[in-house]
Amino acid sequence: MTETDRAKTPDDPTREASASPKGSETLTPPVFDQSFQQQFIDLLLWRRDVRRFRTDPIPEADIDGLIAEACLAPSVGNCQPWRFVKVNAPERRRAIRDSFERANQQALNDYEGERAKLYASLKLQGMDQAPVQLAVFADEETEAGMGLGRKTMPEMLDYSAVAAVQLLWLAARVKGIGMGWVSILEPNVVQQVLDVPEHWRLIAYLCIGYPEEDNVVPELVRHGWQDRIDPHDVTLDR
Amino acid sequence: MTETDRAKTPDDPTREASASPKGSETLTPPVFDQSFQQQFIDLLLWRRDVRRFRTDPIPEADIDGLIAEACLAPSVGNCQPWRFVKVNAPERRRAIRDSFERANQQALNDYEGERAKLYASLKLQGMDQAPVQLAVFADEETEAGMGLGRKTMPEMLDYSAVAAVQLLWLAARVKGIGMGWVSILEPNVVQQVLDVPEHWRLIAYLCIGYPEEDNVVPELVRHGWQDRIDPHDVTLDR
Repeated sequence: MTETDRAKTPDDPTREASASPKGSETLTPPVFDQSFQQQFIDLLLWRRDVRRFRTDPIPEADIDGLIAEACLAPSVGNCQPWRFVKVNAPERRRAIRDSFERANQQALNDYEGERAKLYASLKLQGMDQAPVQLAVFADEETEAGMGLGRKTMPEMLDYSAVAAVQLLWLAARVKGIGMGWVSILEPNVVQQVLDVPEHWRLIAYLCIGYPEEDNVVPELVRHGWQDRIDPHDVTLDR
Repeated sequence: MTETDRAKTPDDPTREASASPKGSETLTPPVFDQSFQQQFIDLLLWRRDVRRFRTDPIPEADIDGLIAEACLAPSVGNCQPWRFVKVNAPERRRAIRDSFERANQQALNDYEGERAKLYASLKLQGMDQAPVQLAVFADEETEAGMGLGRKTMPEMLDYSAVAAVQLLWLAARVKGIGMGWVSILEPNVVQQVLDVPEHWRLIAYLCIGYPEEDNVVPELVRHGWQDRIDPHDVTLDR
């Protein structure tokens, strides 16, 4: 299915984009004006790893729309290795919640004193409230892309799925929807609980819903776990 | 350095955002209207892996601005593991170009017949024209974030650097600047050529410049290498 075909799919939310491809001769590339540029920076500033959700449901069509936008991510050799699993069954959610509890307890044991107290006080996931839970995998055996671009850097396949997660995150925030990425999990447990092929690697477990509050400062900064680092301190010339 | 401090840095391009944090009591979260929502989808649709660049230079301040926006990416435990290396020295660029040639020749040997001909005809990088070349690494030994969130999924550190690359890509496109991600490289060679610490893992080698042309359809789709996949075909319910 080509991108041109995609734009004709009636339930594709990207079809209304003013630049939707119809015939390449009629397309004008967008120019993003000053107002958009400022709002784009606002989007980056206000994207948060959300752990506090309202429980109101999110329409399934909206989630499918976010997934469609995520599928516009770059991927190595255009292999599009991302696989999305909507986790709906309460018993599966419970088993994944249990996996978090085990992994979190183990992690807590790595810290001592004040740091352990601080760790224990942090809210690290919103699995009990988030109306939508989405697992994202990378299909390590996909034939799409024919291996292009990942002979010397095979990890590019996983990175492509990460790119899709990042777009989904921004697309959600654009619609006022919050997302949190839970990584304190046992990947093999999640894979088994969700009954997906063995060659799908867990990339992300996402909690999605309307945020209980908006905040421009990351939760881990506010709680004194880790401050922002100045970009100049992580840039070298060679 | 906190996010509040960052906003006061005079050369921080994010300081002009209408939501720049000054005091949290005065902050109103942005609402992204229909016009922004459509333009955001345009941004995703028109982001391309660019391999054909004009050679006009890009002001250093603009590149630093893109890096600052990339640093607003999410990172596990807020560890901000991204490290940016501006590759300026012609001999270093040449050595990395040589690495591409070797890796590309080896990759070509994996294909046969028509596929090999097609592979050989593809333009897979723009290293000869791109005025800016930026290597992105993940610092595998950073103490920032104190290991939070990556005990069971240590790969989250690398994924955080991938997220920064993704934001840099979109931020560039917002300003009409194109980016291409070159992964047909020998990571250990790039690391040595750039003389960075051994515990920095190469995540991405980026070519950046004004694109020679804009196109809404990915180059690999246009050249018949790999079509788009329908999002419905990569989504499951569980």
